Amino acid sequence: MNPVDIIIKKRDGGELTRAEIDFFIQGMTSGAIPDYQVAAWAMAVYFQGMSAQETADLTLAMAASGEQLDLHDVIPGAMIVDKHSSGGVGDKTTLAVGPIVAACGLPVGKMSGRGLSFSGGTIDKLESIRGWTAELSEEQFRTQLREIGLVVAAQTADLAPADKSLYALRDVTGTVPSLPLIAASIMSKKLAAGTDAIVLDVKCGRGAFMETLDDARALARLMVAIGTLARRKVTALITQMEQPLGLAVGNALEVKEAIATLHGNGPADFQELVQRVASEMLILAGAAANSDDAQSQVQRAIDSGAAFDKLRAFVSAQGGDPVQLEHPENLPGAPVQLAVPAPVSGYVHRVDAREVGLTSVALGGGRQKKGDAIDPAVGIVLAAKVGSEVNAGDPLCTVHARTEEAAHDATRRLQAAFTIAPTPADPLPIILDHVTA
Amino acid sequence: MNPVDIIIKKRDGGELTRAEIDFFIQGMTSGAIPDYQVAAWAMAVYFQGMSAQETADLTLAMAASGEQLDLHDVIPGAMIVDKHSSGGVGDKTTLAVGPIVAACGLPVGKMSGRGLSFSGGTIDKLESIRGWTAELSEEQFRTQLREIGLVVAAQTADLAPADKSLYALRDVTGTVPSLPLIAASIMSKKLAAGTDAIVLDVKCGRGAFMETLDDARALARLMVAIGTLARRKVTALITQMEQPLGLAVGNALEVKEAIATLHGNGPADFQELVQRVASEMLILAGAAANSDDAQSQVQRAIDSGAAFDKLRAFVSAQGGDPVQLEHPENLPGAPVQLAVPAPVSGYVHRVDAREVGLTSVALGGGRQKKGDAIDPAVGIVLAAKVGSEVNAGDPLCTVHARTEEAAHDATRRLQAAFTIAPTPADPLPIILDHVTA
Repeated sequence: MNPVDIIIKKRDGGELTRAEIDFFIQGMTSGAIPDYQVAAWAMAVYFQGMSAQETADLTLAMAASGEQLDLHDVIPGAMIVDKHSSGGVGDKTTLAVGPIVAACGLPVGKMSGRGLSFSGGTIDKLESIRGWTAELSEEQFRTQLREIGLVVAAQTADLAPADKSLYALRDVTGTVPSLPLIAASIMSKKLAAGTDAIVLDVKCGRGAFMETLDDARALARLMVAIGTLARRKVTALITQMEQPLGLAVGNALEVKEAIATLHGNGPADFQELVQRVASEMLILAGAAANSDDAQSQVQRAIDSGAAFDKLRAFVSAQGGDPVQLEHPENLPGAPVQLAVPAPVSGYVHRVDAREVGLTSVALGGGRQKKGDAIDPAVGIVLAAKVGSEVNAGDPLCTVHARTEEAAHDATRRLQAAFTIAPTPADPLPIILDHVTA
Repeated sequence: MNPVDIIIKKRDGGELTRAEIDFFIQGMTSGAIPDYQVAAWAMAVYFQGMSAQETADLTLAMAASGEQLDLHDVIPGAMIVDKHSSGGVGDKTTLAVGPIVAACGLPVGKMSGRGLSFSGGTIDKLESIRGWTAELSEEQFRTQLREIGLVVAAQTADLAPADKSLYALRDVTGTVPSLPLIAASIMSKKLAAGTDAIVLDVKCGRGAFMETLDDARALARLMVAIGTLARRKVTALITQMEQPLGLAVGNALEVKEAIATLHGNGPADFQELVQRVASEMLILAGAAANSDDAQSQVQRAIDSGAAFDKLRAFVSAQGGDPVQLEHPENLPGAPVQLAVPAPVSGYVHRVDAREVGLTSVALGGGRQKKGDAIDPAVGIVLAAKVGSEVNAGDPLCTVHARTEEAAHDATRRLQAAFTIAPTPADPLPIILDHVTA
């Protein structure tokens, strides 16, 4: 087999065989196939696409390129279930869903990432809790999964190194926005992490990587197809990301909102999404007989306080201060809080999620580039969402900033991020579609 | 400026500015832009193409990447004229055209290449003359151009190193067959070699890189446009390469045919092409007032023996044995000569130039890969071309081979390369089109 022939076959729209894909990915990982051939191949894939079978083969080849975890010895007989979000603004879903599902008795061992650009990362959010760390050994990861049933760690093992190399190369060769490469990148890490069942939360809209419903559906279908071909249980929800999820955007602010949600006091859209994702995880893992059973288990975990207790136990086990969870007012707070007034009266038709996310980054709540430090205290709390009626001067949101100057800059951007018109607007639905195998 | 932005702009079908192209080619040449970004860019160009202006800018940037010859001091006031063939089977045109044009008083200083695959190279052909060498210093090149008016050398200077790097990368990344990249590659070397006027001979058909008239026209138009934008005089002939050019295919065999042609005894199609290319060179350089004047100058150079004398002088100056030119039977000859009989009676409708070229390579007359040694004596001499009437058993061609076995293998392939049918067929025209600025 010859790398050039494989590039030319893809360039001309051919379907690569599993053997060709294995050869290419193994060659890339070992260094036998140089970066320039991988780059040309990735650009050919950008233009010609890949079938579901090719994408599944690519995913499995990347998953097989490094260590592949097997967590079945941790809790014999248990299904290992995970959720994955494609990333959005105000997306603190894992913080609430993880404790709920674990409280229902289903072990959740999650390797998570940090945020980049307008989209935040779960680990960044949890790090606003004093002392909490994501740096666990594989042994600690297994022990905590067994004893508490919930663990969120930075990647501990050498999972899917081929994905890491390929992503680094795509980033500098203009080949990031390729659907099969995106899908294979996400799924290869999930498969290598030893997950049996995955609920995918594919965000759709201005604050997501997929801006249209068609694109989000295509990604969701492709990932579900990959999972099925790889003999995993996978289901995908396509969810609203035109406007931010819930009300809080910013690290400590989002932790507070997740705590409120575990107490049953979250914003309606976020509460709905959390309950739906948690239910889907229970159903997929066979821990609930049907949708009604799943919903009542979830409700019980919240109402009984078991879910909040699980959050506290897992955060404590990873060094976090449980007092901050019981008294969230002790979480980091910003010195400047400034209400952003509505410039006119009317109904909110649009809250540009991307612009809100970028404003939070500009306040210091996210990274402009890898390795930037982030400020856990800053962010934005919305007071109005699409469908809200506002009077001129009413607060649209509150800015939490480090300085007065930063707060004023943010105010200008946020006013522009809201579209207010005289006619009423319907609230946006949170669940847009459900893609099953 | 950022290489990724330039890749993405091209990927999305944008037109690159001259500054962007200069930045990219300079970065590639200096090593500041790594191969993997160049490879992704080349694949994006493969899919999205380039405008004539972009291609001209690319050509000039590559020409400017190394030494740029200025030959005007060699013969003050003279136009430096060149011809370039896109490569074909039996294409010994330079061997006859160079001496004719030089005999007409127009200096021809040519840097030429070696052959690869089914297409032979001028230097390989001339090397079948005992002692002849293409390895000249730049000083020798200039002296011979001044004193004899004709020189054919392997590339002496560091011409267009960016083209060399880019071609090497294209070769291993599936990005060779891109029209703008092909055109820029050819033209960048011509511009760097200090040529004022160029007659392009774009071959078209089974034995050429451009198989259809549309493709050949597109390449010809693009190269003429590049030349014009670079303020050179350029004209292109599109010429027949469905069947081999002339009758001889193979190195010494083609030298013999070129000598015969300089004596006025060449095959009709080759004689016509040589006279036309030579005339176009004289017209383009302003050495002939019009087509009639050019044709009579060419005819006079042949009839007077001046063209043959020029061949002898130039070959001798480069160490070649002039006795072999006067007595071509002394050129290398193959021990086995075998006539290939027509299997049936009828008219020749097709002689597959590519198959004849590949058979010559298989006999040892060309290279399967870079650096292979070639056998100057072997090859094929056609006895019939498209339009010829043959009787079963008549020779279609003669194989010149090193061994009986090789001759028999070649015979089988060559019989299949001829299509003979009962209905008459017209001979193929040699000049298919003329593309001017």
